Amino acid sequence: MDEFEIERIADGELTDPVLVEGLPGVGHVGKLAAEHLLEELDSVLVARVYSQHFPPQVTVEDGTTQLASAEFHAVRPEDGRDMLVLTGDHQAQDNEGHYGLTDTFLDVAEEFGVESVYALGGVPTGELIEEYDVLGASTTDSLVEELESVGVAFRENEPAGGIVGVSGLLLGLSGRRDLDAACLMGETSGYLVDPKSAQAVLEILQELLGFEIDYEALEDRADEMEEVARKIQEMEQGTPTPSDEDLRYIG
Amino acid sequence: MDEFEIERIADGELTDPVLVEGLPGVGHVGKLAAEHLLEELDSVLVARVYSQHFPPQVTVEDGTTQLASAEFHAVRPEDGRDMLVLTGDHQAQDNEGHYGLTDTFLDVAEEFGVESVYALGGVPTGELIEEYDVLGASTTDSLVEELESVGVAFRENEPAGGIVGVSGLLLGLSGRRDLDAACLMGETSGYLVDPKSAQAVLEILQELLGFEIDYEALEDRADEMEEVARKIQEMEQGTPTPSDEDLRYIG
Amino acid sequence: MDEFEIERIADGELTDPVLVEGLPGVGHVGKLAAEHLLEELDSVLVARVYSQHFPPQVTVEDGTTQLASAEFHAVRPEDGRDMLVLTGDHQAQDNEGHYGLTDTFLDVAEEFGVESVYALGGVPTGELIEEYDVLGASTTDSLVEELESVGVAFRENEPAGGIVGVSGLLLGLSGRRDLDAACLMGETSGYLVDPKSAQAVLEILQELLGFEIDYEALEDRADEMEEVARKIQEMEQGTPTPSDEDLRYIG
Amino acid sequence: MDEFEIERIADGELTDPVLVEGLPGVGHVGKLAAEHLLEELDSVLVARVYSQHFPPQVTVEDGTTQLASAEFHAVRPEDGRDMLVLTGDHQAQDNEGHYGLTDTFLDVAEEFGVESVYALGGVPTGELIEEYDVLGASTTDSLVEELESVGVAFRENEPAGGIVGVSGLLLGLSGRRDLDAACLMGETSGYLVDPKSAQAVLEILQELLGFEIDYEALEDRADEMEEVARKIQEMEQGTPTPSDEDLRYIG
Repeated sequence: MDEFEIERIADGELTDPVLVEGLPGVGHVGKLAAEHLLEELDSVLVARVYSQHFPPQVTVEDGTTQLASAEFHAVRPEDGRDMLVLTGDHQAQDNEGHYGLTDTFLDVAEEFGVESVYALGGVPTGELIEEYDVLGASTTDSLVEELESVGVAFRENEPAGGIVGVSGLLLGLSGRRDLDAACLMGETSGYLVDPKSAQAVLEILQELLGFEIDYEALEDRADEMEEVARKIQEMEQGTPTPSDEDLRYIG
Repeated sequence: MDEFEIERIADGELTDPVLVEGLPGVGHVGKLAAEHLLEELDSVLVARVYSQHFPPQVTVEDGTTQLASAEFHAVRPEDGRDMLVLTGDHQAQDNEGHYGLTDTFLDVAEEFGVESVYALGGVPTGELIEEYDVLGASTTDSLVEELESVGVAFRENEPAGGIVGVSGLLLGLSGRRDLDAACLMGETSGYLVDPKSAQAVLEILQELLGFEIDYEALEDRADEMEEVARKIQEMEQGTPTPSDEDLRYIG
Repeated sequence: MDEFEIERIADGELTDPVLVEGLPGVGHVGKLAAEHLLEELDSVLVARVYSQHFPPQVTVEDGTTQLASAEFHAVRPEDGRDMLVLTGDHQAQDNEGHYGLTDTFLDVAEEFGVESVYALGGVPTGELIEEYDVLGASTTDSLVEELESVGVAFRENEPAGGIVGVSGLLLGLSGRRDLDAACLMGETSGYLVDPKSAQAVLEILQELLGFEIDYEALEDRADEMEEVARKIQEMEQGTPTPSDEDLRYIG
Repeated sequence: MDEFEIERIADGELTDPVLVEGLPGVGHVGKLAAEHLLEELDSVLVARVYSQHFPPQVTVEDGTTQLASAEFHAVRPEDGRDMLVLTGDHQAQDNEGHYGLTDTFLDVAEEFGVESVYALGGVPTGELIEEYDVLGASTTDSLVEELESVGVAFRENEPAGGIVGVSGLLLGLSGRRDLDAACLMGETSGYLVDPKSAQAVLEILQELLGFEIDYEALEDRADEMEEVARKIQEMEQGTPTPSDEDLRYIG
């Protein structure tokens, strides 16, 4: 096996498509968003990318195995632009892998005629979120304006640590290929998988690309996560606090 | 020395052999099983694989040294199919090593005419085992059926984290070579070396391949391990428990 | 993208220039010093170096992104020698990256006609500094003498652990290219960003190269850092000390 | 700079020399032994090896810098066999570095006509040593016999974990070059630099190669280390023990 390998699975003719990336990351926001797109819209698996920089691992489903990979699905929604959706269970395990995989992903995207890239992800706030803003970053000033016009927030010095991993490099490496690229980052506490943040990101993407989807499945998942969060909070409050200890000694 | 090196030691003509892999892993189940095969059946050391991705280490036996390697033994049992048994003391130390070594192992296997691969290993349950089930995974649906027919268990979402290391990659990389591959994973607590789990795995393999072996040595080893487990338990019960502490304060 | 990439951005004719390096390190002394030079003197961005050994990361400024890189600025001060100033936000993330990046930096320097190299950095003392000495190291004995004549300190067995990272390698790899190289290391506690140490280093460099700059901005930053240090000290003194605990029991 | 680089510094004609390796390791036994040889016998620095797998570091001596390297000295003692002594401050920082450096070291050794290799090191016992035995390992049975005849100990299953790092690989990789190689491992607690263990190793080597040296400097260093050990023990006994705490409560 080579360091990076592209497996073409189907043709999937696409008209002026955009690449939509949602790999694992903060709050799994990008991955949830990309997977929700694939659940709600018809899609065809068109390519897989394998790499020695992925974990040495197979997943098992119905008894048969699949080598660690990233997957590209072609999506042709009734309304809006065609999409090439990139998702998967893994990020690269080292720096050279991140650079090399991102280059390979852009190679695949260009084979399908992609000229615009949207990287989806989360940005950790460290606290519970009431209103889910979506932060933006892009490779060109004109794209910044376009994103602002659909409600994407741009704030000075945010995200503070820049953007890391494939989402960051998709922007960093798109410039040298004359591709436009933007990153849409849903705010999220950073502590739990966050379907609400994923929905906020998708609602922006919907504005930009024009597709129509339902969010019920994401909302159900959000309710489940709130239940999980409630239980964690209860468990934490159930542990003895300093004042309880004092009582024991006083008693 | 190259990144990966194959040393051919003997010819070892084999008729329609299967590759049986048992390298170190959870509960050392695969390694124990493969080594027991080599102890119970006549075998010839036919090849060694060296790699810069193995630890920089020699083992010492009777004063002389042997560079870290994986070993292939040819086994021609009286009953049942011929086997090429892969065992050793090391896994690769990094991702690229895992991928490259597995490819090298399959190169050796193909040189000996192998068309089927059995990777042996353990799957951790986190609790003590009463009945030792053997979980399966394979590259094709037809092989799943064959394994089920000899008692291998297939359960939804198990093993939960997929299969990692050489055992996983043997399945992941066999597909692209038109090799059939299966993984037999003995349930094991995951805390101790587990000869009983190794025996459970071998009994399945015996059904599949038709060899005849004795399990007394493995059973003796299992008795030793139970003695070890009992001592650990005693030591743990000997430490002061919360109730003992309370007594001190009350006293 | 290649392992190391040089992007030439402007010509920037320089006469007999010296390379001045200030990348992140102990107390950020080198980085502060190099950035202060660029703030106080007119400069032109002439080249960037990208590398797969930098973090897989983009920074965001005014909504647009810039891939992790090191930057070279051409500086032609009214007084003193021309400078090629190397600065950035990252060091390499692994050993091979350190060696390869330093070689690439020296390639760029030679393209601009550099024959002398000054690496700026800090040396940790582990205690608060009253008087900021600047320690030196260089590739030739004659350069040691020159540095001593402008007040650089040379002490036996200092710096104790040698010089690590790009600063060290600029000296280690300059020799084999017939470049003279020196390292100027400002003493610093090692606990905080240290603008005073950066100023001490720049004052030496000023003596050596003849430029004229103002230090007010660095002095303001030093005042800010002292305020930070004071607050940390107060917080530490505010926590209960052993004697306080005793009082609780006595009370 | 290449991944591995050999710098030839002087010719150093040697007659039927042996390679003697003493790089950093357990108790610094090998390094102390090799350096003592170089202090007691006339030697000429003949070659250095640089590598991207060494730390990115220069050492500073008298103000001038030296890039991280391993050094070869030619030694022609009045009595006994000529030696090529390999020493330095670093081991490789990763597995591929260990393999590649060892191969490079053997390339240098063969250029000087070496046909026998002695790797010097320590073997940790975890307890204080009264009598300093030297354990052995070698590439051939005949060499085992020769070592036994001069007092080297060979014990079953020792060293338990095999031999790691350059010392181990010198044996592992010598075989494939038709070089004889042996490892001499002085027993040492493993907690401190151990000049006594280094002396035990040198006394064996002296028997094998026939040189004459004085051990006073090593004995002085051993006295210093005993002083250090005594102080550490005092400090440990000075800390409050459980019984002291009890007294406070009782009092």
